[in-house]
This record gives sequence, structure tokens and C-alpha cells, in this order.
Amino acid sequence: MLVCELGRCSGKLTEIAGKGKTMKPSLNISQAEFKARFDKLLEHLKRKKLSGVVLFDSQYILYYTGFAFIPTERPMAWALNAKGKTALFVPRLEVEHAKANALIDQVDHYLEYPYDPHPMQLFKKTLQSLNMQKNLAADADGYPWIFGYRGPALSELVGGKVEPVKAFVEDQLMIKSPAEINLLRESCKWGHLAHVLLQRYTRVGLTETEVSDRAGSEATRAMLDAIGPLYRGQSPYYAGAIAGYRGQIGRTSAIPHSLANNITFQPGDTLVTGASAPMWGYHSELERTMFIGKPSSEQKRFFEHMVALQDAAFAAMEPGKPCSQVDKAVRAYFKKHELMDHWRHHTGHAIGLRYHEGPFLDAGDSTVMKPGMVFTVEPGLYTPKWGGFRHSDTVLITSDGIEMLTYYPRDLDSLTLPV
Amino acid sequence: MLVCELGRCSGKLTEIAGKGKTMKPSLNISQAEFKARFDKLLEHLKRKKLSGVVLFDSQYILYYTGFAFIPTERPMAWALNAKGKTALFVPRLEVEHAKANALIDQVDHYLEYPYDPHPMQLFKKTLQSLNMQKNLAADADGYPWIFGYRGPALSELVGGKVEPVKAFVEDQLMIKSPAEINLLRESCKWGHLAHVLLQRYTRVGLTETEVSDRAGSEATRAMLDAIGPLYRGQSPYYAGAIAGYRGQIGRTSAIPHSLANNITFQPGDTLVTGASAPMWGYHSELERTMFIGKPSSEQKRFFEHMVALQDAAFAAMEPGKPCSQVDKAVRAYFKKHELMDHWRHHTGHAIGLRYHEGPFLDAGDSTVMKPGMVFTVEPGLYTPKWGGFRHSDTVLITSDGIEMLTYYPRDLDSLTLPV
Repeated sequence: MLVCELGRCSGKLTEIAGKGKTMKPSLNISQAEFKARFDKLLEHLKRKKLSGVVLFDSQYILYYTGFAFIPTERPMAWALNAKGKTALFVPRLEVEHAKANALIDQVDHYLEYPYDPHPMQLFKKTLQSLNMQKNLAADADGYPWIFGYRGPALSELVGGKVEPVKAFVEDQLMIKSPAEINLLRESCKWGHLAHVLLQRYTRVGLTETEVSDRAGSEATRAMLDAIGPLYRGQSPYYAGAIAGYRGQIGRTSAIPHSLANNITFQPGDTLVTGASAPMWGYHSELERTMFIGKPSSEQKRFFEHMVALQDAAFAAMEPGKPCSQVDKAVRAYFKKHELMDHWRHHTGHAIGLRYHEGPFLDAGDSTVMKPGMVFTVEPGLYTPKWGGFRHSDTVLITSDGIEMLTYYPRDLDSLTLPV
Repeated sequence: MLVCELGRCSGKLTEIAGKGKTMKPSLNISQAEFKARFDKLLEHLKRKKLSGVVLFDSQYILYYTGFAFIPTERPMAWALNAKGKTALFVPRLEVEHAKANALIDQVDHYLEYPYDPHPMQLFKKTLQSLNMQKNLAADADGYPWIFGYRGPALSELVGGKVEPVKAFVEDQLMIKSPAEINLLRESCKWGHLAHVLLQRYTRVGLTETEVSDRAGSEATRAMLDAIGPLYRGQSPYYAGAIAGYRGQIGRTSAIPHSLANNITFQPGDTLVTGASAPMWGYHSELERTMFIGKPSSEQKRFFEHMVALQDAAFAAMEPGKPCSQVDKAVRAYFKKHELMDHWRHHTGHAIGLRYHEGPFLDAGDSTVMKPGMVFTVEPGLYTPKWGGFRHSDTVLITSDGIEMLTYYPRDLDSLTLPV
């Protein structure tokens, strides 16, 4: 399927591949890297003397195999046994899609859910064929009850305890490879474009919906025209490059996660933006605080504190130190300047296949920062009168410090819009 | 927050309410209905002699309280005790938002996740204050490990078994009230508009992304201009009215859930569409099979069988009969016409707060169809050569039959696009 889609976008690339040459798009995770990923999981199984592992989470399956799917009430599972053999268990609907994946040795399918017998009874056979009847690990005790799915726990199915493996997988996801960082960099570029357009089109009297739509559509089309033959979004969150306000406009921006509404821009508004672009499942994050018209002295004061808070976070980020150090530095600034009334949340979170992931730049997270970790850095100040003040940048921990992956202007002048 | 947003969109409505008159937007779930919903849950608790119930699922919480939020690594929970007292447990970030909800008696908060102590240790205090230390029910044994969250099981926290309540909640969600049906009807209208525009703008040489974007943007703006003051999307899936192809174009449409790509329309393409619009959290579904240019005799043959399959499903839908009856009628047609090679999935699923939910129009689902259930009806035929053939309509079970909530033309002529 992917080949067929690719062929249509770009006959030339497929043709080169057809002549026996290797097609190497720079924007992707290589088969070797997927293999290396599940080899690590395999080592874990051997260390723990487990017969195998079952994963139900779509993003974990994407991480180990490159197989992207939309989870529904139809259960799906990926299994890896201690000998390194892999199987994907799918509904009939997904068979052709699953078979196109080179890293899956065996595709087993059931007809439909709920059906009779229940699909999980057939999954038992998959486990048997992989010699995974007992002593196995899984990311959850059965397929989650989403979209109306109901079914047995995995422990009921195999008649024994199932070893949790989620913490191991989460730990593995934390360190990004050069190829993953490359995808995050690419995500930053197109998020940047969407944000430039958002800022350009935001004007008094227009609504957030029309401006966000226009910015996102134009950025997405440019992205697809520029890198379409190399591109897949593979994101459950965004369909293309996006930039918008999610209702964080004027006074409403005091509620950090307020849900979008179609607000009309007014002079004096404090705006908090968000922009990203999914890249083979990977997400960056860019957020900026902007003003419509010259900010008041109070707006300016909060803006400057917010930038200083972000600077304090950057200064505290270094490999070998705990994540908590960053959040503590930020809170020290909050306290020193008597700003705790305006505090609402920690400094940031890791980001990658999910737009939030662990570890967290939080006073309670003792995880040590390591090269390859990627964080958002986004301390915020909130006030009922003026709204929210928050920049967010995507930042890589390097061997000797940090590297900013986002590169949008952070200063007041650049972020003040004409009235 | 909602008040403040509403005021900005429509000062007049707020003003009327301010004079002590009741503002009754026709497009919403009333406080009385939310109360009636959790009274049913309360009866269940009493029947089962439980001390209370904890819900973690954002859509369940929306269903019982009208409180909409985006689930992240920061745990949230709603608790209802056997005396009918309700509490919402949220991060500091969500306090103002939670307090704006009239149906929540008590808002307890923690500062941040992960923090120290772990937020769930504070949640224990919420449970104590509600007299829910033991013998309680929950939709999951703890907040799910999403977006990097890690935490204890609820059963560990309370030191005892937790009664599952998910099946009860799922059963309650199945029967839609008149107000919910009204929201689904409204969703159909704006999905219809997005689909009309999608069909109008789809032309040879254009790409699916630009056409989908244009149709979705224009439909969303029209919807917000028409019903903005009464409107909230409250959907985790869609930000406004949408219509598109998800890559189901030409031969690619043979894979039902293929992920979107930026394919260029060509003469002879078989197209499978999808359209919807979230309405206070509720979703309808409209899908059509269309052709670019006069279809071949084979395309026509598959199209006609597909319409006949859908007609067979409609004919088999009636209150008091099992869901399986519908899927069996459809499969009987498949078999009679020797089409099983082209079968991939069951006839349909319920729909509402989630775009897929139970029960299912599936040969294995013995749930009895009842008035107030709403289903998608979407039997499909798939062929590697010609692609997929599927219409989907949203259909209500009434006291004596069915009512179509979607109303888009289904016939070949109406769905054949000029070359």
C-alpha cells in the first residue's frame, strides 16, 4: 500500500528502487534501526527470562515496527518471542496493510469484532505458535476497552500473571536516535512555517478559526509540495502542519488548556500560540506569546518575566543532572520575584511520538537528563486580567549542553503585531 | 471560562441570562439531563451496595458532568459517592476550568505531575472525604499510563479490589436521549455541507489535501457563523466540520483504513469519502463512494452491489431484534452474489461521543436494537483493481423502525464527478 501511494506521488524514486538500487529517503527510520530497537526489547526479555512480549499500544508498535494504524474497537497486537520472531495480530481489514511491513514475520488475522468466537480466542493461537503460552510480558493486561471494545484480560487468556513491560518501553523511548532527532528537526521547520503564517495573518477583526485554518492549510500544502515523496504524517494528533490559538486569546489564555472557540481578535489581546507538524509520527512543539498592538507596561512585565523564566530553564539544562534541577531553577525565579500566584504548571515534558511524554521537567522527576532526550521548555505565567504568558521551545540534550531545535524569535518586538 | 468565551461571541445571550431569564440554547445537554445521567449511575451503586464510583475516562466524565478536557500525563478523575456527592480531582492547571462546572460539588487539586508526593496520594484524601475508602467501583484500575504517566493502581491505593463499572457505563451510553439525537442531527447538517463542498471541489489534477482543507475550512466557518454562540466542538477527534478521503482514492481505497497521503485525483478514480462535524462532543458519520468520470461496467457493478448491501441492512434494522440480524442479512447478500472475496468488515457500529462505539452491527453481537440507538450502516466491498466501495449513513432506531439522520444522495448519477 505504501509502495503504491509512494509510486503515485513520485514515479521516479520508485523507478530507481525498481532497478535494484536502494532508495534512501533521508526522512525516515531505517529498517536497521527498527531491528535495533526490538533487539533491545529482546535483550530485556532474555534478561528477565520471559517467553515473549505483547504490545497493544499503537505508538509502541509504530516504534518497534514502523507499522502505523488507527486503534479502534478491533483489537490489534504485536508479539515478539524470545527467539526474535514477530507476529502481528489484526482484523481482516488490516491484513494487506500488515503484510506490506517487512519487519513482521507472521500476520495472523480474525474476521471481525465482536464476532464469535471472540478475536482474543484466536490470539491465543498466535501466542501458542510463538511458544508464548506462559511467562510473558505485555504493555497492558489485554487490549484496552476503547470505542466499545470489551474482552478478556491477557492474564485470563493465558491463565497466569503477565509481567508489565511499559516502564521498560517508556525508558527506551526517552533517548532519541540521530534519525529521530532528524525527524524532530524537520517537524520544527514546518511548524515554524505554520507559525510565521499564523503571525502574518492574525489581525484585529478576524477570527482565530479562519487565521489558523489559513496558516495550517498553506503550510501543509507547502510541506507536501516540498517533501511529499518522502513524507508520512503517521500522527494520531495532527493531519498536517498546524498553528493556532486553542482559544488562548486575551483573558481566556489564563486557562492553559482551554478548548478552542471562534474568538475575534481585538486590540490589546495577549495571544498564546501553538504550532507543530507530524513527521513519520514525531512531533515538535513551538509556542509563542504575542500581543496585538503595543503591550501595556503590565503585559510587558509579565512577558519579560516569562522570557527570563525560560532562560533560567535553559541555563539549568545539562546532561548528567536530574530533570528536577530545571524546574527547581524556574521555581526559584518564581519565588524570588513573588510570582507564585501566577504559577500553574511545571517547566516542560519530553516529546517525540507523543506530543507529551516522560520524563518531565518537574521538581518531582529525578530522571537524569541524557544526550538524545528532547524536551519542551515552557514555563508559564497566568493572570485573570491579562491572560497567559508562555513560550515553548523544543530542546535537545547534547553531550555537553543543549541545542534548540525550534528557532522562532522570542523577543517582544518580534512578537508584537500591528493594530 | 465558558461564560467568558460565550460572552465574547454573543453579548446578547449573556445579557438575557443576566436579567434572571433562562438562556436555553437548543443545542446542548441540559443540567437536568446530566443530573439524570448520574442518578442512573447512583442507582447502580446502590443496587451493588458500593461506596462510590471513580471515572478516569474523559468522555465518560464529559457524559456525566459536561466537563470537557484533554487527557494528558496529568491524572484527572471524577468521583461520585453513594450519597450523590461529586468531586473532580485535577491538576492546578485545570482548577478554574473545573470550578466553572455547576455539577461538581468539590474540586480537589494537586500541583503537578510527577511532583512529590505523587498526585494519587492526594487523590486518596479525596476518596476519604467522600467516604470511598473501600468497596468502590471504577472504569479502570487507576489512571491509564498515557503520555508518560506512571502511577499506582487504584486497588493498590485503596488496598482492596475495585469493582469494574465500564460495562454499565457503556450500556448507558448506548441509548441516546432526544437532546443527544438533536446534537447528532446537527452534526449531520454540517458534515453534509462539508461533503457537498468536497464533492464540488474535487477535480482531476488537484490533490486530496487541498480539496479536503478547502471543504473543511469553508464548512467550519459557515457553521461557526451560523451557530457559533450555541456551539462547542468538545471532540478529541475533529476541530470543526471535516470532509476528506484519508488516502482512499483509486486503488488505495482497497485498504479501508489507509492513512492519508497527498494523492492527485485522476480520471477513473474510485473515491471513498468521509465527513462529520463534532457537536458538543457528538459525532455523526457520512461516507460516499464517488467516481471521477463515467464509471466502467465493473465499477458500476460493485457500486450497485454496495448500495444493495446497504439497503439489505436498512431492511433488517428494527427495534427488538438483535444487532447480529443486520450483519447476517448483509452477509447473506454477499454469499448469494458470491462476493465474499470482497468482504472486509462488519456492517456498522454505534456512534455518539466516540466515532466508534458499541453495540456493533456484527454477526457476533447479540445486543438487542432499541429506540434511541444510533448506528453507522456501512457495508463495503473491496477489490485490489478498482478500490473500495462503501457508503456510510448514520441511522437512528425508532420505536417502530429506523430514521436516516444523514440525507446525502446515494445514487450513482449524483456521485459521478465530471472529468
